[in-house]
Amino acid sequence: MKKYLLFLLIPLFSFAQIQKVEPAFWWKGMKNPELQILVYGKNIANQNIELSDGVQIKNLTTVENPNYVFITVNTNEINASKFKINLKNGKKLISSYNYELRQRNHGSAERNSFSSKDVIYLIMPDRFANGDESNDSKPNLTEKANRNLPSGRHGGDLRGIIKNLDYLQNLGVTALWLTPANEDNEKQTSYHGYAQTDLYKIDGRYGTNDEYLELSRELQKRGMMLIQDYVTNHWGISHWLIQDLPTKDWIHQFKDGEGKYGFKRSNYRTTSQFDKNVSDVDKKEALNGWFDTTMPDLNQSNPLVLKYLTQNAIWWIEFAELGGLRVDTYPYNDKEGMAKWAKAITDEYPNFNIVGEAWMYQPAHIAYWQKDSKIAAIEGYNSYLPSVMDFTLYSDLPNALKEPESWDKGMIKIYNALGSDFLYPDINNILVFFENHDTERFNEIFNADPNSYKLALTLISTIRGIPQIYYGSEIGMRGEKSKGDADIRRDFPGGWKGDQQNAFNPETRTKEQREYYDFTQKVLNWRKGKEVIHTGKTTHYAPKESVYVYFRYNDKEKVMVILNNNEKLQTLDLSRFSESLNGISEGKEVITGKEYQINSQNKLTVEPKTSLILELN
Amino acid sequence: MKKYLLFLLIPLFSFAQIQKVEPAFWWKGMKNPELQILVYGKNIANQNIELSDGVQIKNLTTVENPNYVFITVNTNEINASKFKINLKNGKKLISSYNYELRQRNHGSAERNSFSSKDVIYLIMPDRFANGDESNDSKPNLTEKANRNLPSGRHGGDLRGIIKNLDYLQNLGVTALWLTPANEDNEKQTSYHGYAQTDLYKIDGRYGTNDEYLELSRELQKRGMMLIQDYVTNHWGISHWLIQDLPTKDWIHQFKDGEGKYGFKRSNYRTTSQFDKNVSDVDKKEALNGWFDTTMPDLNQSNPLVLKYLTQNAIWWIEFAELGGLRVDTYPYNDKEGMAKWAKAITDEYPNFNIVGEAWMYQPAHIAYWQKDSKIAAIEGYNSYLPSVMDFTLYSDLPNALKEPESWDKGMIKIYNALGSDFLYPDINNILVFFENHDTERFNEIFNADPNSYKLALTLISTIRGIPQIYYGSEIGMRGEKSKGDADIRRDFPGGWKGDQQNAFNPETRTKEQREYYDFTQKVLNWRKGKEVIHTGKTTHYAPKESVYVYFRYNDKEKVMVILNNNEKLQTLDLSRFSESLNGISEGKEVITGKEYQINSQNKLTVEPKTSLILELN
Repeated sequence: MKKYLLFLLIPLFSFAQIQKVEPAFWWKGMKNPELQILVYGKNIANQNIELSDGVQIKNLTTVENPNYVFITVNTNEINASKFKINLKNGKKLISSYNYELRQRNHGSAERNSFSSKDVIYLIMPDRFANGDESNDSKPNLTEKANRNLPSGRHGGDLRGIIKNLDYLQNLGVTALWLTPANEDNEKQTSYHGYAQTDLYKIDGRYGTNDEYLELSRELQKRGMMLIQDYVTNHWGISHWLIQDLPTKDWIHQFKDGEGKYGFKRSNYRTTSQFDKNVSDVDKKEALNGWFDTTMPDLNQSNPLVLKYLTQNAIWWIEFAELGGLRVDTYPYNDKEGMAKWAKAITDEYPNFNIVGEAWMYQPAHIAYWQKDSKIAAIEGYNSYLPSVMDFTLYSDLPNALKEPESWDKGMIKIYNALGSDFLYPDINNILVFFENHDTERFNEIFNADPNSYKLALTLISTIRGIPQIYYGSEIGMRGEKSKGDADIRRDFPGGWKGDQQNAFNPETRTKEQREYYDFTQKVLNWRKGKEVIHTGKTTHYAPKESVYVYFRYNDKEKVMVILNNNEKLQTLDLSRFSESLNGISEGKEVITGKEYQINSQNKLTVEPKTSLILELN
Repeated sequence: MKKYLLFLLIPLFSFAQIQKVEPAFWWKGMKNPELQILVYGKNIANQNIELSDGVQIKNLTTVENPNYVFITVNTNEINASKFKINLKNGKKLISSYNYELRQRNHGSAERNSFSSKDVIYLIMPDRFANGDESNDSKPNLTEKANRNLPSGRHGGDLRGIIKNLDYLQNLGVTALWLTPANEDNEKQTSYHGYAQTDLYKIDGRYGTNDEYLELSRELQKRGMMLIQDYVTNHWGISHWLIQDLPTKDWIHQFKDGEGKYGFKRSNYRTTSQFDKNVSDVDKKEALNGWFDTTMPDLNQSNPLVLKYLTQNAIWWIEFAELGGLRVDTYPYNDKEGMAKWAKAITDEYPNFNIVGEAWMYQPAHIAYWQKDSKIAAIEGYNSYLPSVMDFTLYSDLPNALKEPESWDKGMIKIYNALGSDFLYPDINNILVFFENHDTERFNEIFNADPNSYKLALTLISTIRGIPQIYYGSEIGMRGEKSKGDADIRRDFPGGWKGDQQNAFNPETRTKEQREYYDFTQKVLNWRKGKEVIHTGKTTHYAPKESVYVYFRYNDKEKVMVILNNNEKLQTLDLSRFSESLNGISEGKEVITGKEYQINSQNKLTVEPKTSLILELN
């Protein structure tokens, strides 16, 4: 009887309140004028919602969970820059939210984005530099700073990055990709940021939304740009929307042995995206299984989820003046949903670039994910994703440099990797890299051999595509994946007050660091203005004696790159390259400034384990 | 002065004679009525050529070498079944050739060809059975029989194959692919037949053209067919046409250090066929370089060469009533020429199948070569080649069975290989195999383990495509590639009089041979009538515990295949396969005849290293 009474009383006494509105504000003059506003509050769906100033609700969607209402408005039809979302009980106003429609920046839609002109520098914000110790721990965020824990929060932040922008600019990188900087309020190992708990808020331990915008603007002042790491596939399990799911199918859930729905790990077999023999059960496990226990798998085929993800991405682009997106775990998503997502964003920003992490090894499988792929078209699919990552080259590069030369081993691996370039609809728009936050450190594989690093850096800086390095690449940072992810995500030396050594400062760089840094700086700064590298064509020659030679050229310029991976000095008979040396008489080497007589009657000697980048004339 | 006199005298005293005419005869009623006849004779181009019976010469082509004339006639316009090719000096007839136009067999154009209904058995004629000792050596052919030489001529022949057709029919194979049986009159190592010296004549040590036709007809009587191994890429250096080249560019020649033209070895980098970064010099070396010193590389971009190759292939199809072609070293040819070649043949025989040896490993690279490939279409290319070989599966299969299971090793390799099936325009029309005349013997890799053989045979016999085995596969023949090609091309035991052991005869088969043979016979004969295997769809499940499971199904039938590569007995929870077991209650195993309760509530136990092929009901 008591219970029954309580049940009756609840609706009488619990006044619904607007607890959250997402997006919190929006902009006028978007190409797509439709805006869907999520309004959250206890039992909100059972109250009346009205908008002020005559703003019309085009559509009001309620779902299983009465704590959510989704309101669609047409921003083109709204003249005011603000209107109220009013929650009423009958005629009585019980809660109200001021919704703002901001003016867009001039040229926002037509903004430039990263391209093969750029070099991307990947930073884990927690591990680069601690610019503001006051935000190392936050009362409202569970995990507190503790540098003694390899997988703990170390205190790196946006201020630390902003303070070191001169360093980055001098280095010659032009775009920063930060691993997710949104709030990740999981209990532990939250530093990587891939289990986000608030999609509209920078994690307080990194700074504020305004500091994020400040970073973006500081970059723009330097002719650089900010790339946001976007995760469509999953959120953190502590995300408020996951904790109070709008619909059961907002995320993918699996029945366990006891009949309860929830976690099942992905089988990670993403070939199921195009495998025509795949079983439904395997495909569901791959795409709908969770990437990890704390990462519920979002259902992009639910239009409300997709709309949320689309608007959220656009919100960040518009708010933080982003220069691009990198999308995590791309092939784990619902691919039809993702095509709509990418199309919606690139419809809004026609020059905008988005690179997806399609971690596969066969060029055909990677190229599948690039916009207008003829391979995906076999299945009638178009991802609308402009850019992908060259995991083939990433995977082959260390082997190419390490293996003894044979028919299919050694430098021929690079030659072979590039042999499939025709499969890509836009070969210039792919990321080339030798390490990132998920891989063994290159310099660990090569046991701190600067020569191997220089060969690899030369390759990714001069071959087609967009070079991407990882914070610390430029000073030879090491890290073993087998020791756990934390080891490949060590703190950048000098990023913390009291660090024993500071690699930001040229004065305190070690001799070894200097060798890496100076070479990197030279190559990357040289690359900046080189259209022939950005968009030129390539002619390459099958490696001989571990020497790989290729030319980049356009109507105006020609560059010859020689990668001698041989332990011995090599003398090249240039007559082999005569088709590329027509009209050429000399070459100036980019690093040393040395001049060479380059013509097809000559021979050219190249030091062991050395690259030459020759500007030809 | 003397010299000058001699020069004057030559034309007066050397009467030109017709020494060769190719093709020697032709047929009426071909879809393409145009026939180009090569007429060869000393200085023949300087004489008059006329045709009798009012037959018109549509075109007469002379070339650099005056010993050749190419005459084009339109066979539709010729009523006679014979006409004369007359060579005249002025009005004086000095030589004549009776040209025959035969009637085609009924239904010749619409003939059937090999398909996924078939199982192909590959034979090296010299190494299978010696049915006629009288032809072991021939006076006019240089290399004499010598079984003591591993790479010598061993005396195997067509008669030996004909005599063993019952054996082959009982085994369950339905199509014979012979390595080239045309004359290969090189001095040594001529047994493999890939350096042909007469394109219109069966090698005398194998038999005669008529015996070749007899073999084909004997096969047809048994519902079987003959597939000819065709080599467009090169001929033997002793070929009479090579010895007296019609034009310098009939073959590809390279300038050597002394300025002489001739041999250069191919670099074998056939990715240059689609590599958009390739240098001309590398591409030429790949495609125009010679496959071996005795194999001058034919220039298929020369229309006379292409016409010769096209007519010769059609001649054999028509004459020997062939059921298909296998084309050697496919990507080493001029691909545009080859597209015309394949199109001309399949225009003539719309149902005809041709399988090309595109020895590459990435599915995208292999699929490139199949007719109507969307991948080749990226470059605007269409090979018109109906069938290719699944070198991906060939390469992955031994590793799949050998490697300890891990994320990307072990049985998952097969699953992954099949994951790219969508790249093929016609996935049923690809050859599946685990060994051929160029590879390590499967049974060598597995050190005579019959269980591994059974797993492999089960796979290729039940998965999509056209299974192909190699003579001796069915009795567990071994052979190490590293010991030289001869070791993987040993004589079939019992094929020679006085052989210590005879595996043709069930009575004298060893216990070990019997285990291989009996299993093979059972699987292949069962496969014959199984449309569900020939053209059914596939659903496969990612391997677990080294057990790979797939279903083949169509509207009428369903087959479940389980490959347990685990060293331990495995118990499968069938609920995982419920989507494939809908409405199924039992399964009958093909080899043992044993019946199983198969439904998604059950478990199923599978012996270690064992396959089950279950016909479901």
